[in-house]
Amino acid sequence: MNVLRYGNARDLCLGLEAVLPDGSIWHGLKRLRKDNTGYDLKNLLIGSEGTLGVITAASLKLFPRPAAEGAAFLTVPDPQAALHLLALAQARLGGMISAFELIHRTGLDFLTETMPSVRQPFATPPEWMVLIDIGMPMGLDPTAALEGLFAAAEAGGLALDGVIASSAAQRASFWTLRESLPEANRRIGAVSSHDISLPLSLIPEFLATAPPALAALGDWRINCFGHLGDGNLHYNVFPPRGGHRAAHEDQRAAIKTLVHDMVDAMGGSVSAEHGIGRLKVDDLENYADPAKLAAMRAIKSALDPLGIMNPGAVLRATP
Amino acid sequence: MNVLRYGNARDLCLGLEAVLPDGSIWHGLKRLRKDNTGYDLKNLLIGSEGTLGVITAASLKLFPRPAAEGAAFLTVPDPQAALHLLALAQARLGGMISAFELIHRTGLDFLTETMPSVRQPFATPPEWMVLIDIGMPMGLDPTAALEGLFAAAEAGGLALDGVIASSAAQRASFWTLRESLPEANRRIGAVSSHDISLPLSLIPEFLATAPPALAALGDWRINCFGHLGDGNLHYNVFPPRGGHRAAHEDQRAAIKTLVHDMVDAMGGSVSAEHGIGRLKVDDLENYADPAKLAAMRAIKSALDPLGIMNPGAVLRATP
Repeated sequence: MNVLRYGNARDLCLGLEAVLPDGSIWHGLKRLRKDNTGYDLKNLLIGSEGTLGVITAASLKLFPRPAAEGAAFLTVPDPQAALHLLALAQARLGGMISAFELIHRTGLDFLTETMPSVRQPFATPPEWMVLIDIGMPMGLDPTAALEGLFAAAEAGGLALDGVIASSAAQRASFWTLRESLPEANRRIGAVSSHDISLPLSLIPEFLATAPPALAALGDWRINCFGHLGDGNLHYNVFPPRGGHRAAHEDQRAAIKTLVHDMVDAMGGSVSAEHGIGRLKVDDLENYADPAKLAAMRAIKSALDPLGIMNPGAVLRATP
Repeated sequence: MNVLRYGNARDLCLGLEAVLPDGSIWHGLKRLRKDNTGYDLKNLLIGSEGTLGVITAASLKLFPRPAAEGAAFLTVPDPQAALHLLALAQARLGGMISAFELIHRTGLDFLTETMPSVRQPFATPPEWMVLIDIGMPMGLDPTAALEGLFAAAEAGGLALDGVIASSAAQRASFWTLRESLPEANRRIGAVSSHDISLPLSLIPEFLATAPPALAALGDWRINCFGHLGDGNLHYNVFPPRGGHRAAHEDQRAAIKTLVHDMVDAMGGSVSAEHGIGRLKVDDLENYADPAKLAAMRAIKSALDPLGIMNPGAVLRATP
């Protein structure tokens, strides 16, 4: 949730210890911010999903907890306004934004339907809202900062309504809502789920054009939520109200292909944070650059000639 | 200089286009914050110094310029105090610290000797000082923030004296001093120069133990300066006053070995930011983990079986 501020696991990893396919142990548990001694084996192993070695230890970069934290829900007219709001927040609050999450009304409807005990911030669920979380050093006041941001956003037409957490407990309840969205999704049951990322500037176009394209395949409810600050969205397609995913099994492949084709055409990724695993080996073969795929296969063969490391994950197992 | 705040070139690179050794072109110019589609070819190519491919384009992450910037020179009792001052600054100023540079008196003496037009902040050059640079969002005052930091540092015994830039021109002149240090070094002429990094907590121990160890080899002037926030120091060894590097050619190898052995024993890096090139191929063979070195050779052979890409850099050219 805080990749926007602190970076992802890759960024936070300073060093690794790993067992390589030939049984040798790479003792690479450095804790250095800068180290340019040869090829970047660390980043090659991270995200290789065990296919190039087994990571047995890691040294991580830590940050001090901010002295004061705050959170707000702001309703926005549309995703384009949410992006402008992100830029405004970055201009006003620099490196102090910890999270910037986009939430569509469908997610709020799913909560009402399946988890009514989760408290919602607005009497009428807005079409789009963002959850913004900030952490500030001592001497600065998160509530005042969020009030100032909201006033500027409202004046600029970027926010229509807002609720600022007035206590740590209320901030926690804001996050409970956000973190309940995946469970509400599971209770409804998606026909097809997608973990996508896009260049930030193309997100409004994708969110405007994907629903009509999907409507040509059927009557769906679409729940889109995710880490807008990272360009990473969970774009999940559900049966119509009263329907069940089991009735749409035969449409899953077409939905996935439509979404992934659109994302690929916009320069996006069909696996933003979850990785390829076995489920997306086909997607990788379809969408990855051929030269990259060939280089990946050459590296896999060079480091694991017997193909014993998590065979079938990321790359199709060779006979 | 601003790695502490924005990350290094690797962190700022979102995508690459590269020509691989077999002539294929990897079209990887994505501009995504998150993309987990297969092995991290981007980070493998970055820092490989042309030995795995030729990078022909890159997409970079950009940041808005801070609304207001400020800088200060603070004298510190010793390197340990400089580290405590860094922690204090991080607690007070969070993500707003753009640079935190350590400067030893030898560097100031070299400026006096070779570049007297460079304005120095203190009448008597201090043994150790830091240059701290901050950038803040709108509505915050860098001068007030630096005054507050200095007062807190002085009260805690972490700063002895300080000069805060009162204008953009003065801030620029502070940076002119820092950026003149390499030229002053060149005019004096080092016997041996080292681009090292260490775990932050071990820097004071290194700076206390290296000079007496080097003194056993001769009478040297040591100029240490660098990016303390990144644990990256330039540790350069010069002939005594009035001496010339040419008279010490035969001692260079012993000096380098002594410094690099100490750094390696402390879990540091003998190539923090400059890379291996051809000059440090021996060092890489001496200090790199054997399993990593074997993996590097396997990757090199797999991607460049003919050994045509920058042969002899990073890895010794095989016949």
